[in-house]
Amino acid sequence: MALIAILPGDGIGPEVTAQARRVLEALDLGVSFEEAPVGGAAYHAAGHPLPSETLDLAKRADAILFGAVGDPACDTLDRHLRPEQAILGLRKELGFWANLRPAKMMPGMEDASTLRPEIARAIDMVIVRELVGDVYFGEKGRRETADGRREGHDLMSYAEDEVRRIAVVGFEMAQRRRKSLISVDKANVLETSQLWRDVVNELAPDYPEVALQHMYVDNAAMQMVRNPGQFDVVITGNLFGDILSDQASMCVGSIGLLPSASLRAWAGDNGLYEPIHGSAPDIAGQGKANPCAAILSAAMLLRHSLDNEDAALKIEAAVAGALAGGVRTPDMGGADSTSQMGDAILAAL
Amino acid sequence: MALIAILPGDGIGPEVTAQARRVLEALDLGVSFEEAPVGGAAYHAAGHPLPSETLDLAKRADAILFGAVGDPACDTLDRHLRPEQAILGLRKELGFWANLRPAKMMPGMEDASTLRPEIARAIDMVIVRELVGDVYFGEKGRRETADGRREGHDLMSYAEDEVRRIAVVGFEMAQRRRKSLISVDKANVLETSQLWRDVVNELAPDYPEVALQHMYVDNAAMQMVRNPGQFDVVITGNLFGDILSDQASMCVGSIGLLPSASLRAWAGDNGLYEPIHGSAPDIAGQGKANPCAAILSAAMLLRHSLDNEDAALKIEAAVAGALAGGVRTPDMGGADSTSQMGDAILAAL
Ligand SMILES: CC(C)[C@H](C(=O)O)[C@@H](O)C(=O)O
Ligand SMILES: CC(C)[C@H](C(=O)O)[C@@H](O)C(=O)O
Repeated sequence: MALIAILPGDGIGPEVTAQARRVLEALDLGVSFEEAPVGGAAYHAAGHPLPSETLDLAKRADAILFGAVGDPACDTLDRHLRPEQAILGLRKELGFWANLRPAKMMPGMEDASTLRPEIARAIDMVIVRELVGDVYFGEKGRRETADGRREGHDLMSYAEDEVRRIAVVGFEMAQRRRKSLISVDKANVLETSQLWRDVVNELAPDYPEVALQHMYVDNAAMQMVRNPGQFDVVITGNLFGDILSDQASMCVGSIGLLPSASLRAWAGDNGLYEPIHGSAPDIAGQGKANPCAAILSAAMLLRHSLDNEDAALKIEAAVAGALAGGVRTPDMGGADSTSQMGDAILAAL
Repeated sequence: MALIAILPGDGIGPEVTAQARRVLEALDLGVSFEEAPVGGAAYHAAGHPLPSETLDLAKRADAILFGAVGDPACDTLDRHLRPEQAILGLRKELGFWANLRPAKMMPGMEDASTLRPEIARAIDMVIVRELVGDVYFGEKGRRETADGRREGHDLMSYAEDEVRRIAVVGFEMAQRRRKSLISVDKANVLETSQLWRDVVNELAPDYPEVALQHMYVDNAAMQMVRNPGQFDVVITGNLFGDILSDQASMCVGSIGLLPSASLRAWAGDNGLYEPIHGSAPDIAGQGKANPCAAILSAAMLLRHSLDNEDAALKIEAAVAGALAGGVRTPDMGGADSTSQMGDAILAAL
């Protein structure tokens, strides 16, 4: 029996993962669930944002449904004890190197975007972000120079195999979609980007149907405002991906609707699934959170880790159905509660 | 007599700097001009994007008016010979460490933005980007690992004095504007950002009237789409500034209107002034380019390097006047030519 680890985390994390669990349970998939604390919740309970029991559960599981981490009460802690370290730790420890972030305008949701409706309507992209390399995990530190000044440094680096595996994901995905791949880098300045570009170019002949384009990251940030509809599949490094995927999500507007997956294999392996929104401590515990992103993350979990495309499509259709039926949580300008949205999605299953 | 170096560069650079020069000449400031090639134009003429004569002129000058660099014919050259290296070289050689990028919606220009008019209308920020540190100029290279894999690296680093001087510019500018300063970093991941944040915090007590806020770069990229009007003055490092300043410009929409300054002192010293748009090779030589950004860059030049605020304001008013009079180059949906826009601005002086 497949085991799904549920790591609810902080703020609205527990509320939204609870709804996602309800949906998974309703599908009667014959899976089991186990929960463990993570982030600020784990720090308060066990003195560490990623306790070893939680990490063990994540490793044992077939898939991980993650809520959100982030807790203002932890702001003054040493960086290594802060809630966000839990998600970095899970990525690194479990080797989840590919982050998939679909950003798609749902029909009728254009009002949520600050972009003009005709611009927003065309958004339908997937950002494929490398997740365990780059400046995130390179050697970092602080030193004092000979003349007593403080200096901080972080090493940015990529090896060709790290780039190749993420590029393959991008090409494969483009092949199944609109056959356009945009690789984002800063090759006019960075040596890592130059290597990135070389490796991506070396793969291109294997995918003759895919139109490959390279774009500098500053231009990509512009183009995502000017004409986000031009993007189909985007591949990029950890740091640029962090920035661009959040920007793309905000272009869609309803960040309460957007799921993500962090994988180490395209299918049939453990992965971590989480809404792209944060822990939103200001509305935690009030039943105001939108559970759609968590529920759609559960759909990605079924698709990628449990190889159950049918169930994934069922969930996605149910979410679309509930939205088409007019159910709206406060983030979408409505007054329905977290569980009312859950109810509507369950009813539409 | 003050010497203004004009480095027209590639593509539309010569056309737009020619109009800016006309405006400067019309003001009868008693300055002299000297021109030199840069970028692709210099590569074709002298084999290097930043020939020593050009660099010498830049060093001798009291201020530099720069057009744009970028030339598709140079795409296959080694990175160190490409046109963009000229601008990096000038920044580094002349020590221009502070890049000021105002992004302001001009009245009546909301249509140019892809953001909804009510969102776009509120944009009025200055991005202050550090320009000679960060991963741009750290040690970089490629090596082969023991098992024969290619690996690329770039060292990101900041020293406290580099951060302090840019933060001071930010605080001073916020003090003169709406008294809000947002410092953008990635302190939850990067040691350089942690140092950045510490140094900025240390300065805060010197500016009790300025409200200081720290924002992660991924969140900043989101907020610039969600509510760009919340930004007054933004300080950030070289890499994040590259991305965010382009994003902010595109939020305004009319990138043909936006100037920039690269400085090493707030006033009374040499600086480099350039439109934020690129060389736009596709429309070069056709009289279609919008010279407003170059002309507004000349205004910044007068303000910062020649200490002539009056003349700067005069130019800014003339540009606003020409636009209010309905003159529009093709980038703004009109049919007026580069020189017609120049004429209108001269007439409004
Ligand atoms: C919390 C933080 C370390 C993390 C990141 O930068 O990767 C977050 O922004 C994300 O994108 O998941
Ligand atoms: C051309 C390039 C090296 C440069 C940079 O990255 O700084 C440009 O994008 C800019 O912002 O002026």
